[in-house]
Amino acid sequence: MTFDQLETPVPLVDLDVMAHNLDAMQGYADRHGLALRPHTKTHKSVHVGREQVRRGAAGLTCATPHEATVMQQATDDLLVAYPVVGHAKLDRLFSVREDVALRVQLDSSHAIDELAAAAVRHDRAVAVTVEFDAGMHRVGVPSLDDAVALARHVHANPPLEFSGIAFYPGHIREPVTSQDAALERLRHRVAEAIEAFTEAGMPPAVVSGGSTPTMWRSHEITGITEIRPGTYVYNDRTTAEIGACAWQDCAFSVLATVVSTSVPGQAVIDAGTKALGREPMRGASGEGWGALLDRPHVVVSRMSEEHGILDLSGSDWRPQVGEQVRVVPNHVCIVTHLNDVIFGVRGGDVVTSWPVEARGRGYGQLIGV
Amino acid sequence: MTFDQLETPVPLVDLDVMAHNLDAMQGYADRHGLALRPHTKTHKSVHVGREQVRRGAAGLTCATPHEATVMQQATDDLLVAYPVVGHAKLDRLFSVREDVALRVQLDSSHAIDELAAAAVRHDRAVAVTVEFDAGMHRVGVPSLDDAVALARHVHANPPLEFSGIAFYPGHIREPVTSQDAALERLRHRVAEAIEAFTEAGMPPAVVSGGSTPTMWRSHEITGITEIRPGTYVYNDRTTAEIGACAWQDCAFSVLATVVSTSVPGQAVIDAGTKALGREPMRGASGEGWGALLDRPHVVVSRMSEEHGILDLSGSDWRPQVGEQVRVVPNHVCIVTHLNDVIFGVRGGDVVTSWPVEARGRGYGQLIGV
Repeated sequence: MTFDQLETPVPLVDLDVMAHNLDAMQGYADRHGLALRPHTKTHKSVHVGREQVRRGAAGLTCATPHEATVMQQATDDLLVAYPVVGHAKLDRLFSVREDVALRVQLDSSHAIDELAAAAVRHDRAVAVTVEFDAGMHRVGVPSLDDAVALARHVHANPPLEFSGIAFYPGHIREPVTSQDAALERLRHRVAEAIEAFTEAGMPPAVVSGGSTPTMWRSHEITGITEIRPGTYVYNDRTTAEIGACAWQDCAFSVLATVVSTSVPGQAVIDAGTKALGREPMRGASGEGWGALLDRPHVVVSRMSEEHGILDLSGSDWRPQVGEQVRVVPNHVCIVTHLNDVIFGVRGGDVVTSWPVEARGRGYGQLIGV
Repeated sequence: MTFDQLETPVPLVDLDVMAHNLDAMQGYADRHGLALRPHTKTHKSVHVGREQVRRGAAGLTCATPHEATVMQQATDDLLVAYPVVGHAKLDRLFSVREDVALRVQLDSSHAIDELAAAAVRHDRAVAVTVEFDAGMHRVGVPSLDDAVALARHVHANPPLEFSGIAFYPGHIREPVTSQDAALERLRHRVAEAIEAFTEAGMPPAVVSGGSTPTMWRSHEITGITEIRPGTYVYNDRTTAEIGACAWQDCAFSVLATVVSTSVPGQAVIDAGTKALGREPMRGASGEGWGALLDRPHVVVSRMSEEHGILDLSGSDWRPQVGEQVRVVPNHVCIVTHLNDVIFGVRGGDVVTSWPVEARGRGYGQLIGV
């Protein structure tokens, strides 16, 4: 099948580049003795999850119980790196089959109480990692004393089992080569956390961390045992701009068609916010909402829902209506969430496809209209 | 069913508010003798499309052939307000059943040639409206001479039928009460266009226009015959801020759960970019990515994929982990595109639900993994 047989906009993944990315990250983790637990929010696909497990991933990470119910098809060791709060979500979490090891990452006694009550109800052990704030100020307990108290609260509530600590350094957005100062603060913070738990008689078996911008420097954080990168499987424009991958490591692009060249100096493609998302280049230089795979200096400068405006002011290239282009999105995890199917390509051929099973929210039951 | 039985984040629509919105717009169109052809990109739902047609809509507007194949369940008169370019898209367009009247809005001879060839192949008449640029500089021919030439090109290519002209004043983003100058320029531009086509012997039977910010002032544009508003059915924070609806006309909200209050001065909810989109308040004042339905001064100030940060600095309210809130998104059309199911509510009860059939791209055929 050739590209022009596809209805655009449509997501393409270069199979060879993806395989390279998967191998490179597993190789990094193996070299440094780190458990790799890839975050599946990026691909939301059983097919890709299995490729990660086959290469040696210790398990998979999910953001939601819905993702966990899908990813149990790929592994028997799941982390939901998110406080699971509310009856409906807890019920879904405990619908994961019994032989799957479950771990939940949380930061409040309320979340512990709800999880413990559900675990008792379902008579099922659940591991817990307590999240402390490593500087992002999103979730995670700011005070290490409070974090230790939460761990004690977990201990007091079997069948919950305290298994360690977790952090997410999402505030570190510097390019890879200028992260030294931020990483030094993070090293210090993680060391303090390990020390606090050890002194409290609860040395953490698991120290789980890592983010995409810091992914290749995780081994510099003393004591870390596990990393949870997501984006590396596909990569995107932001990852390339900050130097966490090369441009040719971008496996994912959105195939689009030029639909109008009426307004001089621009070309309009059929990929807008509903195909690319509206994600800025956080922590990286670069204007626009995506760049052409084959012409990275041509960017999507404006968007409507189904229109993307290619700014041609810096290029001699003048595409015709009907011509196809491939756009590397700024943030691939959002684009995955917009699509139900991914097409795998090799060179100019479409050779396979796979469903994005964990897209959406998995509301199976409708109540009648 | 009560709200706390739902798994969050989940989209809710207040049924009474939606009915009010539908009635108000149809009433406006009827009073001014305008054909109402609602844009279905906002709801992507057969159920809502039928509600629009039942109240008197002349037909429905779609952005893509995929949307058209879904909306043929609700009407036998469809406009695709978008250049349909490429074999796969054209094949999908012509898969709409024969008794449905089709119209396509376009702005290039290439798009006419492709559409004409497909129409001949399928032996099917297709109406065409030529889009001219009314100031937005997105699609639409800037020169009215060129627009007239395109209409002649349509005439020369039966079974295509030239049916009129179209524009989209998406550049007018002023609040409703300060649109006078922009509307005056638009009135002038539309009058010029009608004159140019009339002088060329092709007086346009259809003059199709309108946008959400200008929707209640469409009748001030002399010669307009048809309006294509979309957002009015649900409304959103932007629509309210620019005064095109009242806050209580916002029918749509995302029900979310507070999952963390660890960091002082904020509460974290489980609705982030994958539930709300990342759409700024274009043309309207207002920070953040959404506001609470019951506390509009509390906004979502930061987001990650599955985290929304409620800024509590301007509020005495301190929610607990587990508490539910309803977020009115900045731009509802994006949120619809993220969801497969909408839940209809009345007061605190969930009383119905409907599928978002036209979400996604409708790739039915997978090629084997």
